[in-house]
Amino acid sequence: MKTNFHTRRDFLKTTALAAASLPFIGTLAPFARAAEPGRKLGFALVGLGSLSTYQIAPALQKTEFCRLAGIVTGTPAKAEKWKAQYNIPDKNIYSYDTMEKMADNPDIDVVYVVTPNALHAEHTIKAAKAGKHVLCEKPMEVSSEKCQQMIDACKKAGRQLAIGYRLHFEPNNLECVRLAREKVFGDLKLIQADFGFRIGDPKQWRLNRALSGGGPLMDVGIYALQATRYITGEEPGLITAVETTTDRVKFKDVEESIAWQMKFPGGVIASCDSSYNFNGMNRYQAFADNGWFQLSSAYGYGGIEGKRSDGEPIKFPAMDQFAAEMDDFAQCILNNRPTKVSGEEGLRDVKIMMAIYEAARTGKTVSLV
Amino acid sequence: MKTNFHTRRDFLKTTALAAASLPFIGTLAPFARAAEPGRKLGFALVGLGSLSTYQIAPALQKTEFCRLAGIVTGTPAKAEKWKAQYNIPDKNIYSYDTMEKMADNPDIDVVYVVTPNALHAEHTIKAAKAGKHVLCEKPMEVSSEKCQQMIDACKKAGRQLAIGYRLHFEPNNLECVRLAREKVFGDLKLIQADFGFRIGDPKQWRLNRALSGGGPLMDVGIYALQATRYITGEEPGLITAVETTTDRVKFKDVEESIAWQMKFPGGVIASCDSSYNFNGMNRYQAFADNGWFQLSSAYGYGGIEGKRSDGEPIKFPAMDQFAAEMDDFAQCILNNRPTKVSGEEGLRDVKIMMAIYEAARTGKTVSLV
Repeated sequence: MKTNFHTRRDFLKTTALAAASLPFIGTLAPFARAAEPGRKLGFALVGLGSLSTYQIAPALQKTEFCRLAGIVTGTPAKAEKWKAQYNIPDKNIYSYDTMEKMADNPDIDVVYVVTPNALHAEHTIKAAKAGKHVLCEKPMEVSSEKCQQMIDACKKAGRQLAIGYRLHFEPNNLECVRLAREKVFGDLKLIQADFGFRIGDPKQWRLNRALSGGGPLMDVGIYALQATRYITGEEPGLITAVETTTDRVKFKDVEESIAWQMKFPGGVIASCDSSYNFNGMNRYQAFADNGWFQLSSAYGYGGIEGKRSDGEPIKFPAMDQFAAEMDDFAQCILNNRPTKVSGEEGLRDVKIMMAIYEAARTGKTVSLV
Repeated sequence: MKTNFHTRRDFLKTTALAAASLPFIGTLAPFARAAEPGRKLGFALVGLGSLSTYQIAPALQKTEFCRLAGIVTGTPAKAEKWKAQYNIPDKNIYSYDTMEKMADNPDIDVVYVVTPNALHAEHTIKAAKAGKHVLCEKPMEVSSEKCQQMIDACKKAGRQLAIGYRLHFEPNNLECVRLAREKVFGDLKLIQADFGFRIGDPKQWRLNRALSGGGPLMDVGIYALQATRYITGEEPGLITAVETTTDRVKFKDVEESIAWQMKFPGGVIASCDSSYNFNGMNRYQAFADNGWFQLSSAYGYGGIEGKRSDGEPIKFPAMDQFAAEMDDFAQCILNNRPTKVSGEEGLRDVKIMMAIYEAARTGKTVSLV
């Protein structure tokens, strides 16, 4: 079976059509003109760590509907550097303590929250109160309660909230969604999904539960979880999990590795693994009645490709996922349409991750039905 | 890192050395001369289904220390066919009701039990009482109690009992054991292992719990379980599991698919999947501190090969695993040394599989510690 998506144009068109009937998965289209022709939405980045520095700020330069307008940082030296590099006016530079004052700044339309997980609610709520739309990195927060507060704050402010699920805009992942939805290989039966890496600096916030909310599950396992959800298009009903920690010094605060299994309402089982202590896991494979498809690697900023049991490759060209994610959100705002990667979607993952941790902790299957 | 096993001779030699200090894994060596030079042990096959017909009987023709001496079958037409094809004398042809009479037949040294799982104890015990050594196909039986009865019967008769774990004699699998034991990539962290296939004829005994004791776990999942045990060299302590059945007509009696996770004492997690309802799973991958190794396919009669994270292939030539397994057992008997694939080893897997089913049934982590 040959894929019909041989050009990017066709791909976008077909994806847009498919997405119209699928509330779950993100879409690259429509790239309709903005309400004010030529106007780009001003983005302020909150938290100038490596993701902002090496991915998001460069991606902003490639967007069609966005521009880097401001920054929020607690480090004056970073402010100076970014101000010079991106020509950011002083009035658009904030600290975490002053960011409420954005309310008076029409240059900034969207706040992109790129701080540690457990600060997402605080920064999202401040931005919403300042009347800004919010794009927030994954995981949305470290508890369902804080996610709900973020949703409520944005709703109250009449602003949109999106979560940085960049793979909803990545063509190889979208192709796998198509293969599943169109039942190209029949009904799905089982999905394996794993993502992990050996983490470096033992002092980083990701290993500090107060800031991260958890270990590899929260950081990269979430991609495997997401994959099982966008491939099945369903929410898991039953969850089991096993954690392990072999290095109790480095991983004194969060799990080192975790494996979990989920059963979906349609009968699909998902087997998932995540780790902070070894490299090599970056894959999913979906088995169906008459064949399978997989991506390996599946979740990176580039290098995503896959195979199908019929020998066809899955290999759409790499694109800037952050640029696509931000352009889509800008279009949602400009055209007043809901984002496919909503706060509600972020909350669903956090609820499931909390259930995974509960299953690992209690040794009991957790039911989410 | 380059493997040292570039010739079969070297491989066998090194494996024999390694195996000497490893009670768990089987060995191809020593190929010492038999006690009676030139004497081949007479094997009687019990159950003339497709495994006996297409694998074991042809393999016997390739062995050095074994010969097909007799058969036990309930189907007279099969007896006639085999008698003609393999020149088996009438006195060496038995039915299930007459097999005790083997006691008087010096042509038969070893009984190879190839009947449905739930008949293994009956046929093993009859053979032991007739004074024969027993090689029994996996899974050993459908309950730990019946496995223990088999062990006891063979011990009482002073005869050896081995289980048909052919991969303990397969060089690519043995190479993975070496990579693990010698910590070529450091300490193991996580293993993924899966094996499944879409089963055909809905009326076959494998789908009848009374004869099979269970579904894909008992039949092919056992290979994934075995792999995690011979790779780690440890016994699992904690087990969680999830079952699913989407076709309740075909799989009314046994599970359709099952996924399970195990935690080993050293901290390794294993994520395993097995199914009777789709093709494509035949793999394991072991992740360690500094790299990984995998086989895909991992468990077949041929076509086994793998990769390592350093780019080295794992690709020893295919060999007849059944011939190696039978020759090893013959050598154990002739030299009065214990087999590496003992009844106790078979019992361990059955105990673990019962725990996997219990975990799936109860929704609770089962501890085997």
